Amino acid sequence: MNRTRLDDRLSDLGTDGYLLDASQEDANQLYLSGFTGPDPFLTLYADGEVHVLVSGLEYGRATTEAAADTVERHADYDYEYGGREARNDMYATFVRDKGVESVSMPPRGPVGTADALRERGIDVAVDTDDRLREVRAVKTDEEVDAIREAQRANEAAMRAAEELIAGADVATEADDAEAGVLLRDGEPLTSERVTEEIEVTLLRHGCALDETIVAGGAQAADPHDRGSGPLRADEAIIVDIFPRSKATKYNADMTRTFCVGEPSETLREWYDLTERALNAALDAVEPGTTGEDVHAAACEVYEAAGEPTFRTDPETETGFIHSTGHGIGLDVHESPRLANGGGELEPGHVITVEPGLYDPDVGGVRIEDLVVVTEDGYENLTDYPIRFAAE
Amino acid sequence: MNRTRLDDRLSDLGTDGYLLDASQEDANQLYLSGFTGPDPFLTLYADGEVHVLVSGLEYGRATTEAAADTVERHADYDYEYGGREARNDMYATFVRDKGVESVSMPPRGPVGTADALRERGIDVAVDTDDRLREVRAVKTDEEVDAIREAQRANEAAMRAAEELIAGADVATEADDAEAGVLLRDGEPLTSERVTEEIEVTLLRHGCALDETIVAGGAQAADPHDRGSGPLRADEAIIVDIFPRSKATKYNADMTRTFCVGEPSETLREWYDLTERALNAALDAVEPGTTGEDVHAAACEVYEAAGEPTFRTDPETETGFIHSTGHGIGLDVHESPRLANGGGELEPGHVITVEPGLYDPDVGGVRIEDLVVVTEDGYENLTDYPIRFAAE
Repeated sequence: MNRTRLDDRLSDLGTDGYLLDASQEDANQLYLSGFTGPDPFLTLYADGEVHVLVSGLEYGRATTEAAADTVERHADYDYEYGGREARNDMYATFVRDKGVESVSMPPRGPVGTADALRERGIDVAVDTDDRLREVRAVKTDEEVDAIREAQRANEAAMRAAEELIAGADVATEADDAEAGVLLRDGEPLTSERVTEEIEVTLLRHGCALDETIVAGGAQAADPHDRGSGPLRADEAIIVDIFPRSKATKYNADMTRTFCVGEPSETLREWYDLTERALNAALDAVEPGTTGEDVHAAACEVYEAAGEPTFRTDPETETGFIHSTGHGIGLDVHESPRLANGGGELEPGHVITVEPGLYDPDVGGVRIEDLVVVTEDGYENLTDYPIRFAAE
Repeated sequence: MNRTRLDDRLSDLGTDGYLLDASQEDANQLYLSGFTGPDPFLTLYADGEVHVLVSGLEYGRATTEAAADTVERHADYDYEYGGREARNDMYATFVRDKGVESVSMPPRGPVGTADALRERGIDVAVDTDDRLREVRAVKTDEEVDAIREAQRANEAAMRAAEELIAGADVATEADDAEAGVLLRDGEPLTSERVTEEIEVTLLRHGCALDETIVAGGAQAADPHDRGSGPLRADEAIIVDIFPRSKATKYNADMTRTFCVGEPSETLREWYDLTERALNAALDAVEPGTTGEDVHAAACEVYEAAGEPTFRTDPETETGFIHSTGHGIGLDVHESPRLANGGGELEPGHVITVEPGLYDPDVGGVRIEDLVVVTEDGYENLTDYPIRFAAE
């Protein structure tokens, strides 16, 4: 964590401290406390120091693990598990004990805690800019290395998926399965089977996983459809993998689109266009440019080819119907955004670049690389070929 | 979802509606909306109807998947992605459009949304009892079946772990590894290796996973330590697995403690005591009894044997240092609690019963079964032997 940047970004909030009430599931909490507590706990940042308050059950681990200046336990405030009011009293006492009479909380902090502190005379303001999230967006070298390591696992999983798809047979009239369905060992190759292979590979490489996408045909035309059922020849199959390192908790993200057999002329054009959109967006990545500029670079490739985007038609349900990318770190989706309104890129931003085209009548194509913004451009953290024909 | 129970529990809140702003990661949201949206979205329950508001990207999937009476998208409120204020305006308009001028939100609802609605003239009260959580605690038969199915995967994973441990050799002076370390194929058998086997097995059985615990020796004396490094003979190894079905999102939970070699006399006594504490607690489970009563039944076994509990010494760091169990469902930890202050058990409550003893100088022992409270007692959902010697 970069405390100078933290102090700088939080300096004009006008409150005495910054308060988090969350478990390790919350990236702000994990970042500021450094503690992987499974249940919600308090972290207060005040006067340049990080103070953590945990239950007795977590205390031993928290003292070892937390990147905090002080770690206290509930018993230090004579609190025994039970009453909600007593717990809120303890929270208020903890905050006041640090000389803090007013706190900022991030927008997704719990309203129950905010209101309970207010009732006890502590001012609670919402940090609507979610500044800790902005601090997190710029990674240290160690954080970039953690993402790089997760990306290596991602590449091993993509390789396993591509081999499974490339090695499939195609069912003919003579088979039990419907003609055109991909077969492995005589059984239909399903999205679920490919997903399982990806996730087992990630586990073997020290990564946990969220929700892998393996979606073919019309399913691939919905960017958030995870995919299900048999995959088929001649259709585009989107494979989007976002593993999380178990050791570091940092995420990686990569998408490739594969085809077995003969894709339609339209799918071929879409693939080429999308590869060009990816390269145009990557070319635009450098410090000082904005997320909006990078998004525009991808949009322009599609728009020049007559494909709809949200810029040409905000209501379109086909074409390029999402942003060009997002920051990634302890969250899969974090700052900055590569989209309309996306702000200035800075060295240390780790972002995905992932243009795509979608239409239920055609299918979906998306290609996604993971890059870090450097002083003079970007470094691509992705080491995986871009090819439509699975091999 | 049991809407009668929902209406009953929410009836005296004194607000026009109940509002959630969360992604599927939030169990209340998943329960009320039935929609697996990866980004936060709004669900409003008012006048017996569930209303969902999602982004355009999620709209198609939400209309198919959500258990809602109405599904709307941002474009229905002329909102385009961008400004925070515009988004909050949309939220207020959505709420008012349903005839709602006051809402309750659960304690962990986002303060940013609560305050933004308040600024726009909508009353926001905190439902400090988290009543939706209480509604979720009583399961329908379908929910119990979903948990049962996840528990079958859990048993397969436990079997894989036990076999790996049981089949280990023990390093002697002649080996490269330190004497006493468990070996598989000549390599030290680590917590990480057993965890990987468990998690791969869960994936093969359609389950995702949270953080599996495989902890031996002194590590097992910290109930939340996930375990790391080589496992050893003669020590107690706690294996605690809590998988989540990918299809249903319901969780299961089970713990066994294994030993290879000769456990100390103390560990043997602890194991027997813990099995007796488990049975005493299970015997106490029936409708009308309280979570506190069930916890007391386990405590009494330990206390009679002279082991400390939180009842005899609230500050103790050894002995029985956690509650006897917790409800489980869409969350791994939910209502009811089997602990001091734990309320009345009802048919349909699915709970864990998991007494244990801990001391860094001895190790840790925990045995955990998963049961559903029935009209006349309980049904044990766990089908796995209780034995200390791994086989």
